[in-house]
Amino acid sequence: MEPGRFITLEGGEGAGKSTQARRIAAALAASGRPVLRTREPGGTPGAERIRDLLLGHGPWDPVAEAMLHFAARREHVVTVIRPFLRAGGWVVCDRFADSTLAYQGAQGLERSVWARLADVALEGFAPDLTLMLDMPVEDGMARAAARSGADRYERMGAAFHARVRKMFLAIAAAEPGRCAVVDASEPPDAVFAAIGGVLRQRLGAVL
Amino acid sequence: MEPGRFITLEGGEGAGKSTQARRIAAALAASGRPVLRTREPGGTPGAERIRDLLLGHGPWDPVAEAMLHFAARREHVVTVIRPFLRAGGWVVCDRFADSTLAYQGAQGLERSVWARLADVALEGFAPDLTLMLDMPVEDGMARAAARSGADRYERMGAAFHARVRKMFLAIAAAEPGRCAVVDASEPPDAVFAAIGGVLRQRLGAVL
Repeated sequence: MEPGRFITLEGGEGAGKSTQARRIAAALAASGRPVLRTREPGGTPGAERIRDLLLGHGPWDPVAEAMLHFAARREHVVTVIRPFLRAGGWVVCDRFADSTLAYQGAQGLERSVWARLADVALEGFAPDLTLMLDMPVEDGMARAAARSGADRYERMGAAFHARVRKMFLAIAAAEPGRCAVVDASEPPDAVFAAIGGVLRQRLGAVL
Repeated sequence: MEPGRFITLEGGEGAGKSTQARRIAAALAASGRPVLRTREPGGTPGAERIRDLLLGHGPWDPVAEAMLHFAARREHVVTVIRPFLRAGGWVVCDRFADSTLAYQGAQGLERSVWARLADVALEGFAPDLTLMLDMPVEDGMARAAARSGADRYERMGAAFHARVRKMFLAIAAAEPGRCAVVDASEPPDAVFAAIGGVLRQRLGAVL
């Protein structure tokens, strides 16, 4: 049996992560692979409750906020993601640990604190492939604003989101083996075609 | 101005921590000291929401559960406890980091994981005095059962609570400078008198 793979989508607001995650999962399922599409923060009943705390409340102390993210992530990885991967499934996850580094880092969280929490929570577990959906901050914010019910992060300003974008690109540059930057400013079909190329090249997966 | 002090009460279910915390705070206030009585998990609006997740939901993965405890604790320390101490106040807290080690440790959490999370969340911050209210497990459980609305921890069995008691006593033995074991099986007046002796001896505080 082909081994399961763990694919994460990262990027700023309005980059189209949810749309592309849905399309990737549908294409993998159509090719006969068992697929779980999930998201963070969340993905388990308990982690979704932590998500409600993170998005609906606050501001939190930056270290406390990072600990909440990693508590939710630990729960998600241990109870859902790893069991599904072990059973040979493919997991497509909308945001993962890079988002905590980018968003909390952009608010002043030290990278060393992020790394220590990641080490405790994940014990070396990491995605097989991370798709960094990149686009100009203004375009992404305009797309996100067109949706209803902006959360606490979406309401933060352009300078904040510019720092987030920079952090994502720095992560991708530091880990080129795991990460692929995808131009998300193209139309959804073109973005999906580019992602299909990355999956074929990196994971040998023909969609 | 006399410096503020941070006093924690630890111990198993039914040991009388809340009662004694109330009496200590009242006596310190009567002696003219600014006093904050608080509790964990909780003590801030956000941390109380985390408390609801911890006590009302689960079971959580042990590492995720410890991260939730330390997220709540970080929020409590940064936004409430340290500012009050810096202003010269005395803080009396019902449960703190030792409870996470005792309760999560009794469920299999590795001590090294606890220590790494404590290090990230507390950065060396610790109580000036920890009162370990100790009594036989059966007596404490009988007292706790007489209260209404047992939470998830209170519903766990005698063997679990025996491990918790053993962990608390081991912490006290390892840190005799910070911890004082108080026999909590005595009547409340006698326990409070013993605590008064400890506060006088350890902190020079005459109640």
